[in-house]
Amino acid sequence: MRKLLLLSNSKLHGEPRLEFAKDTIIASCKKHCVSDILFVPYALKDHDEYTKMMTEPLAAMGFTVRGIHTFPSPKQAVEKAQCVFVGGGNTFRLLKELYDNELVDVIHKRVMDGKLMYMGASAGTNVATASIHTTNDMPIVYPPSFEALNLVPFNINPHFVDPDPSSTHMGETRTQRILEYLEMGNNRPVLGLYEGCLLEIEGNKCILKGKRGAKLFAEGHNDAKETFTDNQDISFLLG
Amino acid sequence: MRKLLLLSNSKLHGEPRLEFAKDTIIASCKKHCVSDILFVPYALKDHDEYTKMMTEPLAAMGFTVRGIHTFPSPKQAVEKAQCVFVGGGNTFRLLKELYDNELVDVIHKRVMDGKLMYMGASAGTNVATASIHTTNDMPIVYPPSFEALNLVPFNINPHFVDPDPSSTHMGETRTQRILEYLEMGNNRPVLGLYEGCLLEIEGNKCILKGKRGAKLFAEGHNDAKETFTDNQDISFLLG
Repeated sequence: MRKLLLLSNSKLHGEPRLEFAKDTIIASCKKHCVSDILFVPYALKDHDEYTKMMTEPLAAMGFTVRGIHTFPSPKQAVEKAQCVFVGGGNTFRLLKELYDNELVDVIHKRVMDGKLMYMGASAGTNVATASIHTTNDMPIVYPPSFEALNLVPFNINPHFVDPDPSSTHMGETRTQRILEYLEMGNNRPVLGLYEGCLLEIEGNKCILKGKRGAKLFAEGHNDAKETFTDNQDISFLLG
Repeated sequence: MRKLLLLSNSKLHGEPRLEFAKDTIIASCKKHCVSDILFVPYALKDHDEYTKMMTEPLAAMGFTVRGIHTFPSPKQAVEKAQCVFVGGGNTFRLLKELYDNELVDVIHKRVMDGKLMYMGASAGTNVATASIHTTNDMPIVYPPSFEALNLVPFNINPHFVDPDPSSTHMGETRTQRILEYLEMGNNRPVLGLYEGCLLEIEGNKCILKGKRGAKLFAEGHNDAKETFTDNQDISFLLG
């Protein structure tokens, strides 16, 4: 009976941090009796500063927040937590820290057992999926694996954007990059989550929320296979 | 007495492939008595198609081209070659193939001994440097290491672009990503090569060519440390 909120990003242009997700976070945490949040700041270098930055909007919603780096044992902190919020930043740095602190198995087990609610944004959403193969980030450190927390059996590309038809830049578009992943013969679909969107997951139910929607990419297709919109039930992805 | 041409990209918008680098490629290969090119198509999935696509402009310059994948032993092909051209595509896929085919050491040794000329574009330029930590590509496969051919002791970010001040997208800018790499405490500088630029390297001499120039990023700086322009001698980066 997993409980997850997977955000494409934490901040929309011109809005306060977490504003677009505020109502969903409050309602979902209330439903699951979450009052305390263990914040995981590993995706940025300055853990204190990052925890301070994210505590502000979360405290304003009524939550008590503490950074995992302030505990003598991060693993024990996870074992006792009601809920983790894994912040965005660099996905490679984040996943390496999760492995180095022996948190991958304990987070997976507690979330899948329904004992730990999981919230993540951007890199925090990437690591919640099967693997980080579809992150947008630069590989600034070498993690021991690209396999991740595997709380959902598919991949996500956060901050998804459509190609800009007026661009003269010759780097690959986001769509081209995702199709490159799929042509390597894996059979995990990839959900491109536009900014301002999130997945609300409870057990085997998955609802997409957010005005901009999402695009699904799957092996054997030369472009997006399907497009999803606000409040659409996409539980089949968990099947 | 290494001889390298490291291109930011292979194709500029609205131009034929390799057009911007044509004169330099012809002059440099003539100087180093190169008539045959061993093309390395590992960064794209379809090796035959990719070799065909790159043979066209190279043959028009007068070169004989053959894909490394058509040899029974890629390693022996490198041992006998005058020159390799390593094409762009996905840097992770390319580096993994170089390791899987046991080509990393042999290319390094023959290039550093002055026996093999090296040309690379985009991903082919990334793998020529110390490591692939500053590629723009998606990590679609897991290579055994991010350390690369180490033909030059610094990192390159190909297809470099400045932040777009009008953008409302919240993903990290290229500059932010490079600074994230540098804040991890390594002491390799990162050269951001704008599209249409290349490095011409002979022994310990390195000349930047191309109208758009390059930006150098180094540890302890909050933005680019230096900007370089066409024909500038930046040999100090090899020191």
